[in-house]
Amino acid sequence: MLFTPGSEDIYKDALALHANHHGKLEIRSKIPLVTKHDLSSAYTPGVAEVCRQIAKDKNLAYAYTMKANTVAIVTDGSAVLGLGNIGAHAAIPVMEGKAIFFKEFAGIDAFPICFETSKEDFADQVRSIAPVFGGINLEDIAAPKCFELEDSLQDIGIPVMHDDQHGTAVVVLAALLNACKVTGRRFEDLNVVICGAGAAGYAITRLLKCIGYDTNVCTRVNELIVCDTRGTIFRGREGLYANKYKFIIAMETNRPALDGTIADAMIGADVVIGVSAPGIITEEMVHSMKKDPIVFALANPDPEITPESAKRAGAAVVGTGRSDFPNQINNVLAFPGIFRGALDAHATRITDEMKIAAAHAIVDYQRPTADNILPNILDKGVTIAVAKAVAEAAKMCGCSRDI
Amino acid sequence: MLFTPGSEDIYKDALALHANHHGKLEIRSKIPLVTKHDLSSAYTPGVAEVCRQIAKDKNLAYAYTMKANTVAIVTDGSAVLGLGNIGAHAAIPVMEGKAIFFKEFAGIDAFPICFETSKEDFADQVRSIAPVFGGINLEDIAAPKCFELEDSLQDIGIPVMHDDQHGTAVVVLAALLNACKVTGRRFEDLNVVICGAGAAGYAITRLLKCIGYDTNVCTRVNELIVCDTRGTIFRGREGLYANKYKFIIAMETNRPALDGTIADAMIGADVVIGVSAPGIITEEMVHSMKKDPIVFALANPDPEITPESAKRAGAAVVGTGRSDFPNQINNVLAFPGIFRGALDAHATRITDEMKIAAAHAIVDYQRPTADNILPNILDKGVTIAVAKAVAEAAKMCGCSRDI
Repeated sequence: MLFTPGSEDIYKDALALHANHHGKLEIRSKIPLVTKHDLSSAYTPGVAEVCRQIAKDKNLAYAYTMKANTVAIVTDGSAVLGLGNIGAHAAIPVMEGKAIFFKEFAGIDAFPICFETSKEDFADQVRSIAPVFGGINLEDIAAPKCFELEDSLQDIGIPVMHDDQHGTAVVVLAALLNACKVTGRRFEDLNVVICGAGAAGYAITRLLKCIGYDTNVCTRVNELIVCDTRGTIFRGREGLYANKYKFIIAMETNRPALDGTIADAMIGADVVIGVSAPGIITEEMVHSMKKDPIVFALANPDPEITPESAKRAGAAVVGTGRSDFPNQINNVLAFPGIFRGALDAHATRITDEMKIAAAHAIVDYQRPTADNILPNILDKGVTIAVAKAVAEAAKMCGCSRDI
Repeated sequence: MLFTPGSEDIYKDALALHANHHGKLEIRSKIPLVTKHDLSSAYTPGVAEVCRQIAKDKNLAYAYTMKANTVAIVTDGSAVLGLGNIGAHAAIPVMEGKAIFFKEFAGIDAFPICFETSKEDFADQVRSIAPVFGGINLEDIAAPKCFELEDSLQDIGIPVMHDDQHGTAVVVLAALLNACKVTGRRFEDLNVVICGAGAAGYAITRLLKCIGYDTNVCTRVNELIVCDTRGTIFRGREGLYANKYKFIIAMETNRPALDGTIADAMIGADVVIGVSAPGIITEEMVHSMKKDPIVFALANPDPEITPESAKRAGAAVVGTGRSDFPNQINNVLAFPGIFRGALDAHATRITDEMKIAAAHAIVDYQRPTADNILPNILDKGVTIAVAKAVAEAAKMCGCSRDI
């Protein structure tokens, strides 16, 4: 691999860890099952009464079953890490890892549901398995399918969030706000380039420009240009109508309608955010940015540019998705707290206000430095702070179910 | 409730137990997540290599993920306990209970998937969530839908078993073989009446008459008459063609083509097996049976006749589904061991031979008496014995995947 010094060892350790334990998750009982009375209460005949009560009022599933604290991690394996469309089976290890984060950080019981499915059925199929879950975390699903899927699941009565979009966008927003502090910039003056118009790229774009955000707590950056594999996305680019989401990007960003390469877009920019592919940002490109630029190279497992190269080219702040480099920009700072807060507030949706509240809770958590723009991702206090902020935002916006 | 003395208390205890714990299951990590190295091995960047390996060979999901030891408990809540079609939400407590049995008895990680779905989609939807699972336990799904569903899932490469059918049939067969020992009967001389032509009734019928069993290890009872709400099922009964499974019952049982009530069918019978509804068997009906009859009244939570009434009417052996009466005839003696054996043997299906091997393992486990025709359902040694027998049968019939 191009950009992973020492990767052989960590890959060997990872394979051994997974093989030794046959995966990472187990399912256990929270109650004892020793006596006949245990059995009669947990199972037949006693359980019949619990069923009867829920049959009368579905909402009692929150009181009497695992639903209140259980989240499905739903994927079809179509866009896993930096690996692409590797399918449902190969996605399992990532989903299991995600479930561990849910439990360790937020005390949430999360279970991987890896779908082998056609695009047409997907929303119906997710909908059909919802009863046992209190929330759904969509994961590693390719764009633009992920946008339609998430949209069409907003009415099912439990929070549904595509983490690759919003978890990433929330943490990027927090990182960017703190990088502004460190480099002495104002957020609203930033000129930003985003490399990658997939799930994360689109969600970050929306959040940094408040596109479609029905809230007054969102602040816009000054200028934003999004690039995909063809270069900059601009009004009038050929073929835009084929992808509704790229069309929206073209209409809402890139005011000068710059038609060029990533390198062209980056000249004079304050910030570049890579959510694309390994190695596509060069030292020359970072050199061409404004003084003391901010470089977030978030492709996983191998970033768009290594921190070493970015620093050499003058970057003041460099973030990646990796735990073995400084400034890890990872969703784990956001999603456990967002879902914890949503579940605690009995939210039926995850709103824009809740996402923005999450970002500000991360920003406020500690004083940032150039090598610590974000809290350590293993610091579980962040989850608590995010959960509190999200639950408050949920209560403010009145999206909680009656209890 | 008609037949549950002391039920108020157990119902109160059951509601309290479920409310105090918010359900019964939790999902936990099997591995530590403390250091950055833990994180790098369990998640990014290390996990990427695990994904890549599985992407190359799907079968490696058994080695590197939870798949090898994880079973889905799939229901649509259409036939839960004796409660009927109470829906997906109200079925959750039963599925959670089932999952506890899987873990406590067989060390299997089982997770409830409660579908809200139409009949047409059901098989496709179950198929679509299969990747993360090593087996599927179908549960509390109404007949005849459950038969078609199970049949159509036999090709998906992992064991799929409808426990209400085959788990019940296996334990009933074991109980009946032991009741024969206790009452001095030969299995092949038995005249049997089955009340109930749903999932359990059909599967017991098939197993006691070897209908469709592609194996030479099955022994038939002498005569078998199946009753449904209309009375006996017989060749020529009006409307039989509307239900393929009742048609099969009519063709393969009730040689004299008796057209009558349950009471008519029971006159002179050795055995009555109730898998139907509370209270439908009377003392008079038991009186009319052969001397020292065998009465299995398995409706849950309230049996077709109480043990007290059946005994008063002369029954030599009485079994129910209840843990608070003697002779509990419960699937937990079978399903954990059947799935454990199937997973251990890497079986791709659960064959007739495996089911019959399970029944004989239960029979051979201990010497029966009239009040202990089966081992105690809390005796985990039974699961071990069943698993061993099932795994051996699986290896004999060559239905294991390559590893």
